[in-house]
Amino acid sequence: MEFTVQQIADLLQGTVEGDKSAKVNTLAKIEEANTGALAFLANPKYEAFLYSTNASAVIVSDKLEIKKAISAALIRVADPYSSFSSLLQYYQQALIAAKTGVEEPCFIGKDSQIGDNHYRGAFSYIGHNCKIGDNVRIFPQAYIGDNVQIGDNTTIFAGVKLYANTVVGSNCTIHSGAVIGSDGFGFAPQPDGTYKTIPQIGNVVLEDDISIGANTTIDCATMGSTVIRKGTKIDNLVQIAHNVEIGANTVVASQTGISGSAKIGNNCVVAGQVGIVGHISIADKTTIGAQSGVSKSVKETGTIIQGSPAFDYKQNLRAMAVFRKLPELQRELELLKDKMAN
Amino acid sequence: MEFTVQQIADLLQGTVEGDKSAKVNTLAKIEEANTGALAFLANPKYEAFLYSTNASAVIVSDKLEIKKAISAALIRVADPYSSFSSLLQYYQQALIAAKTGVEEPCFIGKDSQIGDNHYRGAFSYIGHNCKIGDNVRIFPQAYIGDNVQIGDNTTIFAGVKLYANTVVGSNCTIHSGAVIGSDGFGFAPQPDGTYKTIPQIGNVVLEDDISIGANTTIDCATMGSTVIRKGTKIDNLVQIAHNVEIGANTVVASQTGISGSAKIGNNCVVAGQVGIVGHISIADKTTIGAQSGVSKSVKETGTIIQGSPAFDYKQNLRAMAVFRKLPELQRELELLKDKMAN
Amino acid sequence: MEFTVQQIADLLQGTVEGDKSAKVNTLAKIEEANTGALAFLANPKYEAFLYSTNASAVIVSDKLEIKKAISAALIRVADPYSSFSSLLQYYQQALIAAKTGVEEPCFIGKDSQIGDNHYRGAFSYIGHNCKIGDNVRIFPQAYIGDNVQIGDNTTIFAGVKLYANTVVGSNCTIHSGAVIGSDGFGFAPQPDGTYKTIPQIGNVVLEDDISIGANTTIDCATMGSTVIRKGTKIDNLVQIAHNVEIGANTVVASQTGISGSAKIGNNCVVAGQVGIVGHISIADKTTIGAQSGVSKSVKETGTIIQGSPAFDYKQNLRAMAVFRKLPELQRELELLKDKMAN
Repeated sequence: MEFTVQQIADLLQGTVEGDKSAKVNTLAKIEEANTGALAFLANPKYEAFLYSTNASAVIVSDKLEIKKAISAALIRVADPYSSFSSLLQYYQQALIAAKTGVEEPCFIGKDSQIGDNHYRGAFSYIGHNCKIGDNVRIFPQAYIGDNVQIGDNTTIFAGVKLYANTVVGSNCTIHSGAVIGSDGFGFAPQPDGTYKTIPQIGNVVLEDDISIGANTTIDCATMGSTVIRKGTKIDNLVQIAHNVEIGANTVVASQTGISGSAKIGNNCVVAGQVGIVGHISIADKTTIGAQSGVSKSVKETGTIIQGSPAFDYKQNLRAMAVFRKLPELQRELELLKDKMAN
Repeated sequence: MEFTVQQIADLLQGTVEGDKSAKVNTLAKIEEANTGALAFLANPKYEAFLYSTNASAVIVSDKLEIKKAISAALIRVADPYSSFSSLLQYYQQALIAAKTGVEEPCFIGKDSQIGDNHYRGAFSYIGHNCKIGDNVRIFPQAYIGDNVQIGDNTTIFAGVKLYANTVVGSNCTIHSGAVIGSDGFGFAPQPDGTYKTIPQIGNVVLEDDISIGANTTIDCATMGSTVIRKGTKIDNLVQIAHNVEIGANTVVASQTGISGSAKIGNNCVVAGQVGIVGHISIADKTTIGAQSGVSKSVKETGTIIQGSPAFDYKQNLRAMAVFRKLPELQRELELLKDKMAN
Repeated sequence: MEFTVQQIADLLQGTVEGDKSAKVNTLAKIEEANTGALAFLANPKYEAFLYSTNASAVIVSDKLEIKKAISAALIRVADPYSSFSSLLQYYQQALIAAKTGVEEPCFIGKDSQIGDNHYRGAFSYIGHNCKIGDNVRIFPQAYIGDNVQIGDNTTIFAGVKLYANTVVGSNCTIHSGAVIGSDGFGFAPQPDGTYKTIPQIGNVVLEDDISIGANTTIDCATMGSTVIRKGTKIDNLVQIAHNVEIGANTVVASQTGISGSAKIGNNCVVAGQVGIVGHISIADKTTIGAQSGVSKSVKETGTIIQGSPAFDYKQNLRAMAVFRKLPELQRELELLKDKMAN
């Protein structure tokens, strides 16, 4: 995709200074931009880059005073940052919207429905009795098991695996390699030391506006549903066990693991590599620091915890500060003992 | 699948009280059940739900005395929990057994054999010289490399990747996205700072009755085999490095990593997010707490360890209890020093 | 593949003692070898195995003095270890080189080029406008998005996913299930508690001689590129976030996570399950111990750190040694206090 500076200015309702016919084909940061790139300047701290950038065009404030010669064309708008953000969104949507139609071979089972304006990539698989909405993009080699439901405007990237009976809402994005609905890890120990498999017949329900990262795994419930509520964003390589419930607008960073039947509230922030034990509840607006191990329920809204096992964030910071000095502390104690003994 | 209450009762050798012709099409917990669901009551603690449940039928003990009106039909049996467990198993087996036959297109190489009553999903790939047993289900987009052997009754879910020469036993379940037999992480540092790849020509051997979770990775041995013994259960997103050996009936929870050439005993329990360094041995019946880092061999059967680095579980608990109070401890020590100085 | 002992000796420019026509079809360690295997003896410590091995042939030093009867044929060479290493490499290369040609069905988009002597497995997908070099092996069910570039001699194993615009150098190996170029985890919190997706329009650039492990995820840059430099080796299940840069000849072990915009130097060693926070820099030749949490930049070349949060390796060891004894330390402090009080 290539546009003239004037075309971009028209889109943003801005005005051009410089070469209106210059062509741009990508977006870049002003300090990294090369010929053909469109950049923006919102933060005055970066103004020096405006005079040295190789960008073909830069979006700037209509109030900016120019102090030196500039090689790039300027597009003046009221709010450069939000104009640029809009462009980013147009750009990404255009890339995905460009994918439409059906590439062969692909597989669709009996009694499955799929809405208008969809994309089904080659080697994608849709089982029996599926209900899939409008404007859904199913990339190559994705697997949609039997009886799966998917809402409108959802994107399923290449190689995603949705087990039978999974329910996915509208406006969701599921990244490559994510596995949704695999069996919960349920095995009953037997007297002879072996384990008997506990059948897992539940499913996974993802509500609307959810994002699931690459290679994340979400197990189905033993019975009932593992549920992730509206607007929650899950990063890559996260493990969500059977019967977990995660509230709305919660963010879970990479490589975190949430054990069976744990309940996470709304608007929580769970940092990376956190572990949460099973059968506990985490209150709304809880923040959990990276690499924490959460072994108890968090009852109070807005709590911040850290550590393994996790406790109050500030208290943990103070304890860690002393931890580093433990050898000195020990030495001082020895000295005191010696003094006392004399 | 839909059944009448009488049909279920016949299957369980139970007796019906109430509407014998009521229809059930799913299984649910008594506190969550809706119309069409069959639930059970085993624990007297939950008896109140019996009088309020929306389930169409409930399996109860033949000794239970009814105290109020109940809308659901009752199926009376000797042991409600084990009857319900049997139903769960029938249900799950019926779902999987329903998958049979060959969906096209799928790929099978030269000189590969596959037994009776199998399922091969669309876009599944079987290489050359494979030997695959009876009643094996290979879901869509699974990859079975050359010379792979798979025993009877094993299920390979969608998108599993088995590298060439992998051996999988009977009655195994491998979940979507698992990668078995990828190269071990072996690189020899060179004098110029670069790394030379050490060829990895071994394989992975999974014995019978093994379960492998979604997106778990098991590397092949440098030479010889990475081995997992009979009955062991591995959760999602676990990393098992080259030449590791895991004994029988051991359970490894999600996101644990086991480094090269480590040997784990029989009947161990390894919790989530544990790291185990290479070339050590862990005795039978060892329990390793979540997020532990195991840096030394465990020699005594039945040891319980915790922490990073891991040591005795109780000792770790006590040390962690003091850790939280380190700032107070430090203050007290300062006070003592001051007193002594006066 | 089967060879006579004489054929192997000719290849290695060695001389045979014993049965020149004995046949070998695999390589094994001397202590594990069975009939048909070729082993080696380099370390005198293992000489006892030479007299008991079931190997059909053993590569030994031309200086070795034989003390007892040996059933295996011997191949005498100047340096047994390096001769054996060469054989391992021939063996692995032969296995991969054996894969050539195109298995149907596979998909290739418009205006995509692929060089000579390639392998494209069944159900592999190549999008539009891709440029792929010579001797490239693309295994079954791999996904190569639009506009991807891949250099010569690179191997893409089964089920790898390369998002659109990814750049992969020459002599790279990417293992099954790796996802390269998925969206960075970028969401802007809104006043109403919801999150707005920040479009991710950058890409991932892997330079030459890079190895990526199974099920590892590397996110694209928000703008610009997430970059991994020449010769770096990444293990399984590693998470590399948007806009990360990793230098040359760095090794990153399994299950480590590197957050957005972090910069890792050249020749670093990052052990397993490490977490590195975003926007920090790690100096060249830094070593980071397993399960560490790195929260600050490392400025000095050659630093060794450990712990969560990570600090100087030796200091951490000393602090951990005292940590274990914290209950005793506390008791001693109490005793001192009591003494002082009397």
